[in-house]
Amino acid sequence: MPISFWTIGKTNSKEFQQWEADFLRRIKAFIPFRTEVIDISRSIRDKEVLKLEEAKKVLQKVKSNDFLILLDEKGKGFSSRGFAAFIQDQLSFNTGKNIVFLVGGAFGFHETVYQRANAQISLSEMTFSHQLIRVVFLEQLYRAFTIINNHPYHND
Amino acid sequence: MPISFWTIGKTNSKEFQQWEADFLRRIKAFIPFRTEVIDISRSIRDKEVLKLEEAKKVLQKVKSNDFLILLDEKGKGFSSRGFAAFIQDQLSFNTGKNIVFLVGGAFGFHETVYQRANAQISLSEMTFSHQLIRVVFLEQLYRAFTIINNHPYHND
Repeated sequence: MPISFWTIGKTNSKEFQQWEADFLRRIKAFIPFRTEVIDISRSIRDKEVLKLEEAKKVLQKVKSNDFLILLDEKGKGFSSRGFAAFIQDQLSFNTGKNIVFLVGGAFGFHETVYQRANAQISLSEMTFSHQLIRVVFLEQLYRAFTIINNHPYHND
Repeated sequence: MPISFWTIGKTNSKEFQQWEADFLRRIKAFIPFRTEVIDISRSIRDKEVLKLEEAKKVLQKVKSNDFLILLDEKGKGFSSRGFAAFIQDQLSFNTGKNIVFLVGGAFGFHETVYQRANAQISLSEMTFSHQLIRVVFLEQLYRAFTIINNHPYHND
């Protein structure tokens, strides 16, 4: 299973769920891909406690040879072609590994998650809502595979 | 009518239309705001002819004292707080003017549109689909007004 996409907390919007399902289907035409939601109790109100709880679940779930990439505003930014080249590099350098993209919770990542991460990338300097970042990521991943495969989706 | 958002070509996705409508409603709680779709014949296949047709319609529609801001990958990038400060500046410097944000068609803007523009901003270095850029922009504009008004939507 080469690429996984983990998010923290469910998305409630039905419109988004439909849209995500459409992109999942399109990405799977190019590569084995799965998404997983890491569920966290909604009763936790304290920001630091919440980040720590999220971190524990992520670190339990991630395997030692998984290549973990955080989606983080402070990460490296890419053009869509640059992101496609990055994906292609990861696929060739990390043969046999699972590549995991992780979106954090509302308050970002706990320090221990940053310590475990293999890379940090940014989709924009701007902060997007949790629902939106999922859709933006799926669209970019799909776009990356259309670029890699010379499929006519992307216009420069 | 202080802020307008013009896009080229209709969005067909029902999910997006619902989501856009939700953000429109939320933005209008802060400021008079309207969106308009500039419709272009779908029969035009040539990239340059299409860009010129789009440019003609935009330049006919824009008033001489409108402050025209293009959403363009090569424009200035902002953090969400930086974008909020930009919006606040535009609102105070451009009193009495209509601020128009314009998203281009599939192949970007014709040179004459760049010549007329007062500013160019970028939501990301990445290329987003036309449907997605609308939603991303509306979410950022809403987020900007929540930041300006100290509404608890935005977490740094």
